[in-house]
Amino acid sequence: MSGSWGNRIKYTIFGESHGEGIGIVIDNLPPGLELDTTQIKLEMQRRRPGDSDVATPRSEQDEFEFLSGFFNNKTTGAPLCVFIRNTDSRSKDYDDIKHLMRPGHADFTGYMKYKGFNDYRGGGHFSGRLTAVLVFAGAIAKQLLAERNIEVVSHILRIGTASDFPFDEMTLKRSDLSSLKTLSLPTLNTETGNAMREQIASVYGAGDSLGGIVEAAVLNLPAGLGAPFFDSLESTISHLAFSIPGVKGIEFGDGFAFAQMKGSEANDQYYIADDIIRTKTNHNGGVLGGISTGMPLIFRTVFKPTPSIALAQQTVNINTNTAATIAIKGRHDPCIVPRGLPVIEAIAAMAVLELLND
Amino acid sequence: MSGSWGNRIKYTIFGESHGEGIGIVIDNLPPGLELDTTQIKLEMQRRRPGDSDVATPRSEQDEFEFLSGFFNNKTTGAPLCVFIRNTDSRSKDYDDIKHLMRPGHADFTGYMKYKGFNDYRGGGHFSGRLTAVLVFAGAIAKQLLAERNIEVVSHILRIGTASDFPFDEMTLKRSDLSSLKTLSLPTLNTETGNAMREQIASVYGAGDSLGGIVEAAVLNLPAGLGAPFFDSLESTISHLAFSIPGVKGIEFGDGFAFAQMKGSEANDQYYIADDIIRTKTNHNGGVLGGISTGMPLIFRTVFKPTPSIALAQQTVNINTNTAATIAIKGRHDPCIVPRGLPVIEAIAAMAVLELLND
Amino acid sequence: MSGSWGNRIKYTIFGESHGEGIGIVIDNLPPGLELDTTQIKLEMQRRRPGDSDVATPRSEQDEFEFLSGFFNNKTTGAPLCVFIRNTDSRSKDYDDIKHLMRPGHADFTGYMKYKGFNDYRGGGHFSGRLTAVLVFAGAIAKQLLAERNIEVVSHILRIGTASDFPFDEMTLKRSDLSSLKTLSLPTLNTETGNAMREQIASVYGAGDSLGGIVEAAVLNLPAGLGAPFFDSLESTISHLAFSIPGVKGIEFGDGFAFAQMKGSEANDQYYIADDIIRTKTNHNGGVLGGISTGMPLIFRTVFKPTPSIALAQQTVNINTNTAATIAIKGRHDPCIVPRGLPVIEAIAAMAVLELLND
Amino acid sequence: MSGSWGNRIKYTIFGESHGEGIGIVIDNLPPGLELDTTQIKLEMQRRRPGDSDVATPRSEQDEFEFLSGFFNNKTTGAPLCVFIRNTDSRSKDYDDIKHLMRPGHADFTGYMKYKGFNDYRGGGHFSGRLTAVLVFAGAIAKQLLAERNIEVVSHILRIGTASDFPFDEMTLKRSDLSSLKTLSLPTLNTETGNAMREQIASVYGAGDSLGGIVEAAVLNLPAGLGAPFFDSLESTISHLAFSIPGVKGIEFGDGFAFAQMKGSEANDQYYIADDIIRTKTNHNGGVLGGISTGMPLIFRTVFKPTPSIALAQQTVNINTNTAATIAIKGRHDPCIVPRGLPVIEAIAAMAVLELLND
Repeated sequence: MSGSWGNRIKYTIFGESHGEGIGIVIDNLPPGLELDTTQIKLEMQRRRPGDSDVATPRSEQDEFEFLSGFFNNKTTGAPLCVFIRNTDSRSKDYDDIKHLMRPGHADFTGYMKYKGFNDYRGGGHFSGRLTAVLVFAGAIAKQLLAERNIEVVSHILRIGTASDFPFDEMTLKRSDLSSLKTLSLPTLNTETGNAMREQIASVYGAGDSLGGIVEAAVLNLPAGLGAPFFDSLESTISHLAFSIPGVKGIEFGDGFAFAQMKGSEANDQYYIADDIIRTKTNHNGGVLGGISTGMPLIFRTVFKPTPSIALAQQTVNINTNTAATIAIKGRHDPCIVPRGLPVIEAIAAMAVLELLND
Repeated sequence: MSGSWGNRIKYTIFGESHGEGIGIVIDNLPPGLELDTTQIKLEMQRRRPGDSDVATPRSEQDEFEFLSGFFNNKTTGAPLCVFIRNTDSRSKDYDDIKHLMRPGHADFTGYMKYKGFNDYRGGGHFSGRLTAVLVFAGAIAKQLLAERNIEVVSHILRIGTASDFPFDEMTLKRSDLSSLKTLSLPTLNTETGNAMREQIASVYGAGDSLGGIVEAAVLNLPAGLGAPFFDSLESTISHLAFSIPGVKGIEFGDGFAFAQMKGSEANDQYYIADDIIRTKTNHNGGVLGGISTGMPLIFRTVFKPTPSIALAQQTVNINTNTAATIAIKGRHDPCIVPRGLPVIEAIAAMAVLELLND
Repeated sequence: MSGSWGNRIKYTIFGESHGEGIGIVIDNLPPGLELDTTQIKLEMQRRRPGDSDVATPRSEQDEFEFLSGFFNNKTTGAPLCVFIRNTDSRSKDYDDIKHLMRPGHADFTGYMKYKGFNDYRGGGHFSGRLTAVLVFAGAIAKQLLAERNIEVVSHILRIGTASDFPFDEMTLKRSDLSSLKTLSLPTLNTETGNAMREQIASVYGAGDSLGGIVEAAVLNLPAGLGAPFFDSLESTISHLAFSIPGVKGIEFGDGFAFAQMKGSEANDQYYIADDIIRTKTNHNGGVLGGISTGMPLIFRTVFKPTPSIALAQQTVNINTNTAATIAIKGRHDPCIVPRGLPVIEAIAAMAVLELLND
Repeated sequence: MSGSWGNRIKYTIFGESHGEGIGIVIDNLPPGLELDTTQIKLEMQRRRPGDSDVATPRSEQDEFEFLSGFFNNKTTGAPLCVFIRNTDSRSKDYDDIKHLMRPGHADFTGYMKYKGFNDYRGGGHFSGRLTAVLVFAGAIAKQLLAERNIEVVSHILRIGTASDFPFDEMTLKRSDLSSLKTLSLPTLNTETGNAMREQIASVYGAGDSLGGIVEAAVLNLPAGLGAPFFDSLESTISHLAFSIPGVKGIEFGDGFAFAQMKGSEANDQYYIADDIIRTKTNHNGGVLGGISTGMPLIFRTVFKPTPSIALAQQTVNINTNTAATIAIKGRHDPCIVPRGLPVIEAIAAMAVLELLND
């Protein structure tokens, strides 16, 4: 367990990378919601490979079919199920290596958990492909949040050694934040995007891959959202973030930098402006005691380098229990960060919506 | 919501820092378990202030009373409730400042969530004092894990600018790991402990506080524990970790360092030794695809500096909606890290036990 | 599992009949609620033995102590824990028979589930005494429902061969319904109460006990409450009802009588009056498709005869695995129905509140 | 909420009677399970209309497609999704009456809950058609129970005034119990089946419908299954039973007859035979204190008469808010009991499996 998440709106995910397809059941959506399919498609497009320099050439159209809960172009209130059939899967790529445990992937752990019965093709249920339905769900969540003026924005803070400007009071006020959604490598500093592209191209050429950091912000969140033990705002977001393949760390506000800070540097002092209580700084990233302060919620997640690399690696053949060497062919992203970014936004929207409805 | 966590064993926490006391209901423990009260007390002692240089002088004896589920010195299988009465609370310390929102604390967010009805004394339900019952629960979880030879160890990796050796293959094999439990500032490098003590003393003298990082490892975990979407091993641990007051970040394995690594550096290659499949390195911290690899599970959490500082800070009076200045007297830890460490171990044990029973 | 119930408000029960006491943690109550302790005590008084003819002479005062979540006489919004210490338990009554499995009780099944480690004294965690905290919780639920004008009423429909008038359109309009709460044997027909009293006294004199039926109604419920698969209004109420010791059946509306009815007799036809859609009859007991119709919600639960009887019964000694004879002394209710009635009302209030908040 | 049920194995249902189809996601099935599709089809065939005298002529083939979790003819351990497309839906039947609230159906309550956005065609998500996927899930549960020799059997105890022999020690020992599965009107007394058929035919001819009672037994259940507060065996089964459209009551063991019984008649006295503790009688239907005794688990559920009848009924037009008359054409079962019976078996299997895994 468990393929389900959420108490107010429950999301149940299913599917495999090279099986019939992938899907999600979303239960307890408000009835009568006109889904903004243009926005949904736009969000899904962001996750899809498109920029040939930085992403896999596998090209799924991600056409979704409503199997239930959608009638006369509106949600009915009953469970909504959407399904995306796989069309461009090349399962044969995996025939040769099905007994070879790809380093950095879930082949071995999946084998151990599922006693060898897991669908190994393309990672099966562990595949990043599953995140397409998270983005679908997140797009609906964003639409519901937009009704309350709440917005999720994000950019790539770092890939390899290339760093973007961080979100801070100034950058979060920029009028062009929405344009981040249109970039294949969304950065606040345009030049950083180019540097990242070069670094990715360079490692890709060498048969290797790169990791990176996504920084996200949720804007216009009201104060008072979340809870102490056990469902804090951070608990809720991190629970979902670590469901995304490749995520290995998360931090809120100043995060790990707090280790070297003093309380007098870390505390956000209060002031009143226009009868609203705000903090002068936002070291705590908009959350105190597990509950939103009303300041921008800011968090960063790190993605490890794509484990699929063309370079030869030592591994084992799980069938013969012998040592082996593997060089992964197939089609892979040299850096998962650009495609992981819209997934981060999606789970942030789902998490915030859950707490808003709580 | 919610004061409850867990599916296989359910933990329900309650209480306030300056109310009647704090407690926890633990449901679905195996019947007939002889609780090792010596170990439980030892664990709770680790969390209690004791080392006058680094912790608050408030001295709670943390005497726990079994209210249910415990009969003839064994668990019955019915819900076990334990209660710890508050004895050394000085609520009057909070009378003067009850309308002043302490920066960095949950005073303001608690006020907003609970519409001003929250018990403000000592942070009320948000207080770090609540973690005493988590340590109690964690001690039971550790006892159950020990039956399977699974062990949780941890040390302080960093306080301010003082850094300890990291957990790696070599340090995790040291025969004196268990002695970490006996140190007030548990470090692998003894000299680091002294440096940390000095740094804490120095900032305390200046009316300030310090943050830091705890690194924990779970040893002898079998491969195959955890799940992909949505209840990964990382999701489960992080969900609990962010319930601990002061935690602002968590990372597994190489964590945020992955951002600058290549796949060829990050992947852990496999080999076979004595018919067991292991990885040569452990960059992924013992977890792949949300599931344990059988290698040590390694994660780090960062604690922010204690927000209670003696230095004057700007804030607001929530009653009069006016600006105010606050200098916190009371009794406070200059650095929460040493007392947070056994709590980290406790939630790690609870998380692993949950997945083991799944 | 599990001692916890509820998603919007979570109730966690603990305790034993002859241990330290019994308690409940109620999480997610609205903050700032002034608990009507007079009403709470009144409800608890209804469940307590008082009428010497029909109930056990064990006399617990049921003094409750707030352990958390209650500050300045109001709920704080944090988990509220209330504890009732046992004072009048005579555990020695159970020393002689601890190895004898009392027929009709949970001694044997508790032994099997908990491998012999359950607290056997007075049924331990299985005791009807635990329902005292359900009545406490139900009293709070009733208070919250009263804010929306929703009311729960009930009467004893049957004990032995004595039958009361059923709830129907006419009886539910009676102005004296609230007086039912003041009767030790609440019936619509006063004479029935006397007949029931006589029947109970008669079987008690013979060392035996009697079963009966409680009929409850929830009034002024809005239409649209509940859900189809899986959390119907009936599912929610029945789930809780079967948590009450001694309940063996539940039916809604015409219930088992439907088996002999035709659709034309069973369907409730609609009409409009004052712009409100109502049904001419209420065979379906106010619920269709798992969702409230706006008509009174009506259900009946049957309690089996109290299993504790003075007559000799055949049983086994679980220790020696041999046949034995048991005649139960102790103090027991000859008929649990009068004391079960306020518990039925309590769980009905809890169930309806849950769905109202959903 | 909620379309999901279960903690150990989680079932998530979706779909509508006249939409794309119906489906279910089953999460946490054991990996490597070879599904017995012959048995699954057999169970689904039992629920399908086949006997023209007693069931609707709508003929769905109920061809199921595995969308996920099934690989090389075995379960993978990842969520299994199965989908059944609707093929024989005649939605036009509902065009004329979409504003008319059919008495006894969920049209009105669904309208109120979903604010008029529910799919009204054939009851939409409220349709009995959804139970096809419950039968699918139940067939898998039965297969898993069979590995432990646990079996679910059932028969029609009553339709109209025709009554079958009840399950008792003698009837449950009959060697031909398994043949019940092959009968369109499964009864222990063959003659009863004919009487039921006649009664159904008679009311159908008159444009009316009939209700009835299904009695089910779970055999070879080990003692010790279930729990006291709040997840008793009865709570678990009843929660699911009331998810089935048309079920209005449930009783365990002697059920409502307990109301007129004495303790000395109701208690099941113990004896030992072959070192196994058993009860001489089984008035409690195999469950005490919410936990199985090891005796056959016996319960009865009542189905109300099919609300769809050809006779004219008074109703309202929800669009115009005016009175109207409705006579339901379409294709309908004159008595839902024969088709409800395999659904009762399915949910019994799901409930028992859940508790077995707990």
